[in-house]
Amino acid sequence: MKLYDRPGFPNPARIRIVIAAKSMEPAMEFVSVDLIGAEHKQPVFLLKNPMGVLPVLELDDGTLISECTAITEYLDNFDNQPLLTGKTAKEKAVIHMMQKRAEAWVMDPVGVFFHYATPGLGEVLQAFKEPDWHARQALGLRAGQQLKAGLEYFEQLLTRQPFLTSDTFSMADITLYCGLTFADVLGLIGEEFTTLRAWINRVAEIPCVQQRSGQQFVYDDLKRMGLV
Amino acid sequence: MKLYDRPGFPNPARIRIVIAAKSMEPAMEFVSVDLIGAEHKQPVFLLKNPMGVLPVLELDDGTLISECTAITEYLDNFDNQPLLTGKTAKEKAVIHMMQKRAEAWVMDPVGVFFHYATPGLGEVLQAFKEPDWHARQALGLRAGQQLKAGLEYFEQLLTRQPFLTSDTFSMADITLYCGLTFADVLGLIGEEFTTLRAWINRVAEIPCVQQRSGQQFVYDDLKRMGLV
Repeated sequence: MKLYDRPGFPNPARIRIVIAAKSMEPAMEFVSVDLIGAEHKQPVFLLKNPMGVLPVLELDDGTLISECTAITEYLDNFDNQPLLTGKTAKEKAVIHMMQKRAEAWVMDPVGVFFHYATPGLGEVLQAFKEPDWHARQALGLRAGQQLKAGLEYFEQLLTRQPFLTSDTFSMADITLYCGLTFADVLGLIGEEFTTLRAWINRVAEIPCVQQRSGQQFVYDDLKRMGLV
Repeated sequence: MKLYDRPGFPNPARIRIVIAAKSMEPAMEFVSVDLIGAEHKQPVFLLKNPMGVLPVLELDDGTLISECTAITEYLDNFDNQPLLTGKTAKEKAVIHMMQKRAEAWVMDPVGVFFHYATPGLGEVLQAFKEPDWHARQALGLRAGQQLKAGLEYFEQLLTRQPFLTSDTFSMADITLYCGLTFADVLGLIGEEFTTLRAWINRVAEIPCVQQRSGQQFVYDDLKRMGLV
């Protein structure tokens, strides 16, 4: 199998953690995609994923799987021993519900904020983003508001339970962790979110997360670009 | 089980079709939520779904499941005979990938367009939406562009295969169908999309869809409100 990604960015980090949790690194060939040069927006890459985002998994039969939820479903169910996506109907449902909340309330708005309210990944990629100034400002502002609502929700939830679906670490926790570490790099998590801060540190110690901790990579990449 | 929804609106329609496909109507109590009066944005409903959207499934043990993908995972896997969400790892992955594309490229932008570029569901609900005029205009415009890209992608894809994941009808087709029928009510599908128009008509004949066809209900609701 091949994984097209860019180590350290938030969505690629989600799948790197899944691969570590499933001990699938030896079966995987990693192909680095130049996000900063907008390689993922060019025709050659759009044949792999018409939505033009990373990561993309290519199976040995040539099947292309994009979207983190879909890739996680594949890798986690490949051996019929799901660890991260649930075994029963109820487990699957609660995990997918929390996956969507972690995306809609943290991961997605942090990404929008980064691309529309900061210089993002620089000029080459900006050409593929919304050019209108009012629209950019509106999208960035709205993303910031969504993120704030999300941080408040998860701060409350995680005072009552160790993980998003209660006691068991799942793909939804991976999504929230990668979104939060990116938000933190961008200075978007206030000091008042003490439960979330403690949670990030606790999740960082889980072996599969420790092995592929996203934060440092993202930070290094952005630092190299002079963005943080 | 209880389903909190409003018949005929696009996301509720997705789950009504799933329930018909699984022959689960006799097991379900339907509770109508007043979307036009913004009942889903009030504190009582936010305890059921903090994201304030429909539908929500309440299990007999009190567990609350929101988000269509999560509800579908539950209903489809409840009897260990999945029809709509895949059996193998690869089937699950391709279905989830297409589910995301149908949401991000059709269902979600049609909803944003409806709420931001039209009077939407009227004044009461508008109070819970983005108030800034520039932001509303930007969001509506962007949604229209996303939808156009989505219609072009699915028009091409469905000239090559009968359903989104190739030969088998899945939850991703339900999502696309409900999104397209809503887009059509709003006049957003141009005459040039001949394959999509034929596909909508073909899917409308599938028994579970026929039993719970969304289009007419939405249209009737909007007509009653003087919106179309």
